[in-house]
Amino acid sequence: MQELRGLPVVKSLVQKLEKQIQELKENGVIPKLAVVRVGEREDDIAYEKSIIKRFCDINAAVEVFTLPFNVSQDTLEETIISLNKDEVIHGIMLFRPLPGHLSQERIKTVIAEEKDVDCMGITNTAYVFDGNKKGYVPCTPQAVVEILDYYGIDLTSKKVTIIGRSLVVGKPLTMLLLERNATVTICHTKTVNLADECKSADIIVACAGVAKMINADYIRAGQIIIDVGINMVNGKLCGDVDYESVVNKVKAITPVPGGVGTVTTSVLLKHTINSAMRIIHQ
Amino acid sequence: MQELRGLPVVKSLVQKLEKQIQELKENGVIPKLAVVRVGEREDDIAYEKSIIKRFCDINAAVEVFTLPFNVSQDTLEETIISLNKDEVIHGIMLFRPLPGHLSQERIKTVIAEEKDVDCMGITNTAYVFDGNKKGYVPCTPQAVVEILDYYGIDLTSKKVTIIGRSLVVGKPLTMLLLERNATVTICHTKTVNLADECKSADIIVACAGVAKMINADYIRAGQIIIDVGINMVNGKLCGDVDYESVVNKVKAITPVPGGVGTVTTSVLLKHTINSAMRIIHQ
Repeated sequence: MQELRGLPVVKSLVQKLEKQIQELKENGVIPKLAVVRVGEREDDIAYEKSIIKRFCDINAAVEVFTLPFNVSQDTLEETIISLNKDEVIHGIMLFRPLPGHLSQERIKTVIAEEKDVDCMGITNTAYVFDGNKKGYVPCTPQAVVEILDYYGIDLTSKKVTIIGRSLVVGKPLTMLLLERNATVTICHTKTVNLADECKSADIIVACAGVAKMINADYIRAGQIIIDVGINMVNGKLCGDVDYESVVNKVKAITPVPGGVGTVTTSVLLKHTINSAMRIIHQ
Repeated sequence: MQELRGLPVVKSLVQKLEKQIQELKENGVIPKLAVVRVGEREDDIAYEKSIIKRFCDINAAVEVFTLPFNVSQDTLEETIISLNKDEVIHGIMLFRPLPGHLSQERIKTVIAEEKDVDCMGITNTAYVFDGNKKGYVPCTPQAVVEILDYYGIDLTSKKVTIIGRSLVVGKPLTMLLLERNATVTICHTKTVNLADECKSADIIVACAGVAKMINADYIRAGQIIIDVGINMVNGKLCGDVDYESVVNKVKAITPVPGGVGTVTTSVLLKHTINSAMRIIHQ
């Protein structure tokens, strides 16, 4: 059994960015991400901390813009618009889901395409669907692909079962895997015989957001399992896969924590650096 | 065996539009589609004729704008922009694929969202991916869903295998079927064991663009087959499914011609009428 740990993937990603980081430095540019957070959700704050750590490690900058939970749509939009215009900001990330009184749909049309490093806006969404390489892909599905690439797992003609059809993971991941010539099955809460769908795959990607739902009953020997889930159970982090139950059966598996989540912030860093590079190459 | 013919679906669709057609008439509005054709491709001209026939049947208007094969990008874009501005035009359809010297990507950002009745532009593409009901879905995948709806074929928890991952059919259809709670598998030229993928489905949608590729070896008794293919073989139209080979095995199947293609132009009509309705309700 191979554990597909995130840290070596992160190191490799950062190493590949070094030339760009050096070029930016020589041009006096510090890549900078604006994180916009509405309210004080624990999940958001935890993710924010890990972003700041990842960026600080290579001397990139993060500025957090916090808005009160009851912020108006107009104020939120004005914040995004001012960040669009701010020349020292290269990427903008807004924590989602937003509180119920705010329209994410309106924000999608406001955020500048070239700073939309987590693929929230209309244009980048269309690019992901079209397979247009110009755009930014959402960070989590991109992290899944980075892990598969790093560990040399070829996707051509592989059968992948994705559990979860969300806009931030399941759907964009489907597009990324199709581009790499995988045969993709998308399962969700209305899927019957989920166990059969899982067993028939070469690779299973669990992104349902349900703690430990995929156990030994869902898998067969020799499969590769990518666990995107991040759930808190009794004060401990766990994935959508029951790791202990499947670990002796699988060929390879990402741990939680220390797997996909670890790589996600590096993808955000990569996108922010790419955005900064565009500016100096303009 | 039930033949899922397109004509009753068309009749039902047009019937549902009658109230809107009447309301438009009372407001002195004739729903009008601009068809933009570059060059003289036979396929395009055949489709154009069927569009004109469908629209004329209910006294809606079609105006065809033909441009020479070697038209410049600028002229094509200017044509689209002038149609965007033209108040008597409610929908714009551009035949694709474009000749190689023209950039479809640039057109995607030019066409007005509210007239983009065949979902070519960035915004409608993102809406399809997001499942946002505000947008226009590409006409062919929408025609597939209209047929399934008309014949009372519920998609919830059904297993659908789609053969073909194109931007105009396979990918958007995946999104529409996921919204209707189907479990979807997307196959393509790199899929191994395509026969197994087909046999495991409740519903097969063939949209690969390869004449008669799906024969009795690919199916099991009792399945529903939707044939999106339109291929010319020895001067005769045929689908991606070898109809004669499978017809005695299946539960239901769309014929070619007379199936999906028949419904597609009605979807275009429906979208154009919806666009005209938006204007009078502004």
